[in-house]
Amino acid sequence: MKESPFDIEDYIHRVQSFHGHIAPGVVIGGFMVHLARTRIPATTLFDAISETPACLPDAIQMLTPCTVGNSWLKIINFGRFALSLYDKYHGNGVRVFIDPERLEKWPEIKAWFFKLKSKKEQSHEHILSQIKQAGVEICGEFPIQIKPEFLKKRDKGKVVICPSCREAYPLQDGDFCLACQGNSPYITPDAPYGQ
Amino acid sequence: MKESPFDIEDYIHRVQSFHGHIAPGVVIGGFMVHLARTRIPATTLFDAISETPACLPDAIQMLTPCTVGNSWLKIINFGRFALSLYDKYHGNGVRVFIDPERLEKWPEIKAWFFKLKSKKEQSHEHILSQIKQAGVEICGEFPIQIKPEFLKKRDKGKVVICPSCREAYPLQDGDFCLACQGNSPYITPDAPYGQ
Repeated sequence: MKESPFDIEDYIHRVQSFHGHIAPGVVIGGFMVHLARTRIPATTLFDAISETPACLPDAIQMLTPCTVGNSWLKIINFGRFALSLYDKYHGNGVRVFIDPERLEKWPEIKAWFFKLKSKKEQSHEHILSQIKQAGVEICGEFPIQIKPEFLKKRDKGKVVICPSCREAYPLQDGDFCLACQGNSPYITPDAPYGQ
Repeated sequence: MKESPFDIEDYIHRVQSFHGHIAPGVVIGGFMVHLARTRIPATTLFDAISETPACLPDAIQMLTPCTVGNSWLKIINFGRFALSLYDKYHGNGVRVFIDPERLEKWPEIKAWFFKLKSKKEQSHEHILSQIKQAGVEICGEFPIQIKPEFLKKRDKGKVVICPSCREAYPLQDGDFCLACQGNSPYITPDAPYGQ
């Protein structure tokens, strides 16, 4: 991995298939993940953080073993277009981010990133072309150390049946599951058995 | 899609590759996604909700166009092993969940699901074998309607540079980005330019 070049055309092909469209954020994310991986030893078992739910998680899921469902990828929504890869046991790793200063050379990327133009004014083709040319040039990076409490695996504890919806949930959430405690996105009865 | 049978062996092969190991939850999730898709018209543009971050998001990402990064998949952590697929414009759809009552016939799945046995006592092979036999039999389902406010696309608004870390963030988060406001998972300086 460490020495292999990033095959951007092959990656873009996969982006179309997995993400559904060739979003600039996922393409930039590919370069970011690639850069991060070159900074950690190839044998390191690593976890990942995406600091945004937008685009970047898909780049990580496509280019590393870390997925949301296997919990090796965590999304912490700080609204920053940045990711970290770090040793899953010791927490040392690298953070890669888009450096606004480095965008000055790339007006199309900058206009897209800071939403300086309306969608109609943007040219998808020009943005992509600049992203491919710029590659990792627009990225900043620095080493990071993850807080120990963040590395701990959280056990969800005892699993019981919710007296309201009669589905299984972690008892530590309370006397009812979190959905029956409120905040359900459903209008239709969430608890068909009645509460 | 509607009439096609679910090719479980092919799916398990893909689970190994994407999720990294053949986790029971992702295999059950495959049946759940398949069932949900048969309940909505094949032409419907749908979004997805996973009510748990564990396993199920990967089944959805593998078997539908919905991913975390393209935002068609939302994870709302209710701690319930359930998912919904719904019309992205009108919010009508279906919710599929594991029905604890239906697990009575499948002691290995039940023991795994309710953590009645330690990992050491569990047989991965027996659990998988019962999951493959049971298929959608252990699932419950009912129609749902998503609340209108949940269907709205949230615009993150103006993007500005954080005076602390000098990275881009949505201004609506405050005078500093959320990471610089606290809760960073990093020990090492999150703001290398100083705060």
